Amino acid sequence: VCELLGMVASHPADVSFSFTGLALRGGHTGPHADGWGLSLYEGRFARTFLEKDPAHSSPLARFVRENPIPTRLAIAHVRRMTRGIASLPNTHPFVRVVDHRHVVFAHNGTLPHVKQLPLKYESVLGDTDSEYAFCVLLEALRAAYGPRYPEDPAALGKTLFELGNELGRDGIFNFLWADGQHLFARCGDNLHRIEYEAPFGSATLVDAEVKVQIREVLHRVDDASMAVVSTVPLTRDESWTKARPGTLWVFSDGKLVHSFLPPTSYQGPSSEAPAWAPS
Amino acid sequence: VCELLGMVASHPADVSFSFTGLALRGGHTGPHADGWGLSLYEGRFARTFLEKDPAHSSPLARFVRENPIPTRLAIAHVRRMTRGIASLPNTHPFVRVVDHRHVVFAHNGTLPHVKQLPLKYESVLGDTDSEYAFCVLLEALRAAYGPRYPEDPAALGKTLFELGNELGRDGIFNFLWADGQHLFARCGDNLHRIEYEAPFGSATLVDAEVKVQIREVLHRVDDASMAVVSTVPLTRDESWTKARPGTLWVFSDGKLVHSFLPPTSYQGPSSEAPAWAPS
Repeated sequence: VCELLGMVASHPADVSFSFTGLALRGGHTGPHADGWGLSLYEGRFARTFLEKDPAHSSPLARFVRENPIPTRLAIAHVRRMTRGIASLPNTHPFVRVVDHRHVVFAHNGTLPHVKQLPLKYESVLGDTDSEYAFCVLLEALRAAYGPRYPEDPAALGKTLFELGNELGRDGIFNFLWADGQHLFARCGDNLHRIEYEAPFGSATLVDAEVKVQIREVLHRVDDASMAVVSTVPLTRDESWTKARPGTLWVFSDGKLVHSFLPPTSYQGPSSEAPAWAPS
Repeated sequence: VCELLGMVASHPADVSFSFTGLALRGGHTGPHADGWGLSLYEGRFARTFLEKDPAHSSPLARFVRENPIPTRLAIAHVRRMTRGIASLPNTHPFVRVVDHRHVVFAHNGTLPHVKQLPLKYESVLGDTDSEYAFCVLLEALRAAYGPRYPEDPAALGKTLFELGNELGRDGIFNFLWADGQHLFARCGDNLHRIEYEAPFGSATLVDAEVKVQIREVLHRVDDASMAVVSTVPLTRDESWTKARPGTLWVFSDGKLVHSFLPPTSYQGPSSEAPAWAPS
């Protein structure tokens, strides 16, 4: 498995405080020792840093921590190998150009049968089920919306919610999806969120005796808001909201703007084999 | 204008020595002060570093110089703004996923009318003529070869040679194109190459009193070979070969493997308006 982190803010924020918490899990305090990746949006362009080495000892991860790049939207991933070999093409987040923007995707879990689905337009660079699932989602969006990327976050959220629950029948499918404006977060079995608004307090990272002033993270903009979503709560003195399996959250401008909830009959991952998986 | 650098080697090499020469031109000794980019292949995956700040003062450029990442194929670009605003989406190299590999492209020059050409599949992230030209080339390859990327470097070289001379009628079109295996370098008006084979000597960077032992760059692999191509000769005590306008070179495994030369009647850039430009 691996850990996911998403951040969306109304004003440019330093994601490095959250990334530090996640990076410390990269081999130092956690078992996640097989590489990491970080995508930082500037407008619709995602600058992406990837490394095969554990984040706690990586010079590039140190560079990112010591030279924070303010951003309003970011996705980070720390990976322990489950499928495929440790290599750059297998390192999350995955990035594609779609209709004048970068779309960024990271996954926690496994989808054992997803590679049985056909791909026509998209192609993978590595051999993970995660990147393959990303390509399947991109092709499904193309089938639903044509070559134009859907600008309406409610419509796109509903589509990703439905696709997530369809693909998620195959296994564990926690994922983050970003497009430069919105962050979509799907819970397979493990996803937490926290939202920050003034008055801002302090937070203590789970795996380090580091106290962070949220107001400093937001560059002292007092009307700023920020949301952080992660497979694991990253701070230990705050109240994180846990998602129910099958939920998809949509964040925009630092806030949760839509929640798509599964029917109460939804049994979570692996309760039913997908139609395209062998019986 | 801006400067281009391409490196291809038979064994993993430190491109940072060449990049240092190029980076010094980023505002320190040269006029190229509006950002830089560097793509380093690992297999068919291109790790890309981009920065809006001048390379001579950028912390990320310093990181890249101080933590050299051995690679067999790299493209670098240092930019002075000519078209569009200085922003990440306007920073070369440009990268797209094509049939299971990253294709990387960087351009020196301007193509004033290229945006009049239609795009169907590809879309741009920024507003440069360079990225637009890259998308035009990708669509032309798709028209010629279908969704499969052409594996034969001679065939692809001939196609890029012909497309380069067609688009190059519009202006200055020096470009580098890489696909994880081969490097294609097209001369609009300015392109130089140098090839290294044992016995290796030393080279002195043009803008710095830095002497580089080529054998160290190649990690003391004595049967290694390496080729470097650049819009400007980067060393001052070596003999660089200058291309004739309209030429396209193909490099593989550290060596020049194909040269496509224009007919002697070829007049170079801007001698004739392209058919798709207004008369």
